[in-house]
Amino acid sequence: MIIDCHGHYTTAPPALKEYRNRQVEAFLTGSTLAPDFHIGDDEIRESLESNQNRIQRERGVDLTLFSPIAGAMAHHVGNATTSRHWTEACNDLIHRAAVMFPDQIAPVCQLPQSPGVGLANCVDELTRCVEELGFVGCNVNPDPSDGYWTDPPMTQRHWYPLFERMVELDVPGMVHVSCSCNPNFHHTGAHYLNGDTTAFMQFIQADLFKDFPTLRFIIPHGGGAVPYHWGRYRGLAQQLGRPPLEELMNNVFFDTCVYHRPGVELLLEVVPPDNVLFASEIIGAVKGIDPRTGFHYDDTKRYIDQVEWLAPEHRAKVLGENALRVYPRLAQRIQARTTRNSNDLA
Amino acid sequence: MIIDCHGHYTTAPPALKEYRNRQVEAFLTGSTLAPDFHIGDDEIRESLESNQNRIQRERGVDLTLFSPIAGAMAHHVGNATTSRHWTEACNDLIHRAAVMFPDQIAPVCQLPQSPGVGLANCVDELTRCVEELGFVGCNVNPDPSDGYWTDPPMTQRHWYPLFERMVELDVPGMVHVSCSCNPNFHHTGAHYLNGDTTAFMQFIQADLFKDFPTLRFIIPHGGGAVPYHWGRYRGLAQQLGRPPLEELMNNVFFDTCVYHRPGVELLLEVVPPDNVLFASEIIGAVKGIDPRTGFHYDDTKRYIDQVEWLAPEHRAKVLGENALRVYPRLAQRIQARTTRNSNDLA
Repeated sequence: MIIDCHGHYTTAPPALKEYRNRQVEAFLTGSTLAPDFHIGDDEIRESLESNQNRIQRERGVDLTLFSPIAGAMAHHVGNATTSRHWTEACNDLIHRAAVMFPDQIAPVCQLPQSPGVGLANCVDELTRCVEELGFVGCNVNPDPSDGYWTDPPMTQRHWYPLFERMVELDVPGMVHVSCSCNPNFHHTGAHYLNGDTTAFMQFIQADLFKDFPTLRFIIPHGGGAVPYHWGRYRGLAQQLGRPPLEELMNNVFFDTCVYHRPGVELLLEVVPPDNVLFASEIIGAVKGIDPRTGFHYDDTKRYIDQVEWLAPEHRAKVLGENALRVYPRLAQRIQARTTRNSNDLA
Repeated sequence: MIIDCHGHYTTAPPALKEYRNRQVEAFLTGSTLAPDFHIGDDEIRESLESNQNRIQRERGVDLTLFSPIAGAMAHHVGNATTSRHWTEACNDLIHRAAVMFPDQIAPVCQLPQSPGVGLANCVDELTRCVEELGFVGCNVNPDPSDGYWTDPPMTQRHWYPLFERMVELDVPGMVHVSCSCNPNFHHTGAHYLNGDTTAFMQFIQADLFKDFPTLRFIIPHGGGAVPYHWGRYRGLAQQLGRPPLEELMNNVFFDTCVYHRPGVELLLEVVPPDNVLFASEIIGAVKGIDPRTGFHYDDTKRYIDQVEWLAPEHRAKVLGENALRVYPRLAQRIQARTTRNSNDLA
């Protein structure tokens, strides 16, 4: 089973964005607008069948871990209530998509973060999504200011209430920044990769995983700069008197959203095969066709296929088995589906 | 001739740092302290002979482009006068080192940047260093706030006075951030690489090199995340309607400060051989010995030597010829030294 651990609902029906626009307008005039929009099942079906699901089929991908648009989380907008309403709207739509296509889509939630605000709202929304709606993971924004990095590092106690709940629910988090309000940082060309790199170094510096031995994070976009600089990080850990990187490998994983063969090959060469999870992020940051190959830049499965030295058992881990291990609720979900289908057939 | 394009005077005699401490104390009490310290020639000689020069010899490196400690530029400290005094002190010491060891060290200057301040002071100091003291390049900090990125992107007109002078003097700049005041960013483990990544994306987004066709930047630390994500950047440029990356290659270069063989090999595979400059940044961010190899992490020449497929003419470019082309005043300096030595012998 081939599992893509990183997809966003970038083709969500326009009524969602229209609600967001109205919500932000309301906030700017001093009022509050709870989710208030209508999207029909047909619209959801069409928006996925012609996009996410079609591309999955074309590329031989069975299932995608699917979450709201990362760039649209925009946690800096409004206040904690703004963030909660918007997050509930987005997560509810993901839930409907996952109910509609249970074999193609598994739901991952956005969290109602806000800069300078504690994590209690996030704990509540995570609990709702996982316990009531069957979500299997969440996205955690290490910079809710969206480009100014004014909140504490992810290893600080500020974050602990969320991490405690993630551990209790046994769901991992993808460390994923959102848009950038800072003109220095292009969002997908700088802020995303910087966020990945920054989080990994925070994990090296602190004892977060001593406090939470089973907490798990996926660092997307191939880990930002990290695998390319694996020697630098090994050397820095050693110099700072921190444990070797191997000790992070129970808790930290990298996806394969690296859009050329040499990058994917480096990732597979330096990061242990238990710690790489297949992902492509369609339809995402880079949508075009590479004129050099005639294939989409983000068709990352092709790059993995081209790495001939990858042992079959390691390939199987990267393409699906690791995702089942890192997201145990995904494994349970698939098991439940399989059992139900068998019963239906029997 | 093997040229390392990235070294900092990290072993400068302690009187420099002691002056800095007194300068900052003075600023905090409302006064100003111009450079006021004594360092003897013997101290400079010893600090280099036993460190930078020794390691160069051991690793077969002929010459290093040598600048003040990047992390100590600390442009956020004090005001524009603080920055000017500190920069003059640091640059004057580099000058003395380069006069003392003209065949081992070529001088590169720090600039007296300050957050929110125009570039006039930088123009003056660059002119002084290049025209009076024979410096061949400069370091440009894309984030003088040191971790909060509150100044304009490098492609904005704010920066143009400096770039005009760099072009007139025909000196390139290394894009190099300084320390990080932001607890989210470890300075050498996150801020440095983020700065590199950020600058490259800024160059993709704007027409800076249409305005300055001969302006040249070296992006250090192997270009941050960039070569690892070369496909992402090719795809983003295409998607944003920007020119292909090839068009940046007259102006943007990458050093080889990547501290393991797979990273260096990827860099050499994806970046054109005219655009990679050998560098190791000794004695710098990562000082230890890799227990897997028994050699220093930052002994990057070894990694380049291990890339067997690198054509001899490309290897020669990377190890020295590119530096002579990108830093024309370095080539002139070496030529002048060679002529003088020949005359001395005649």
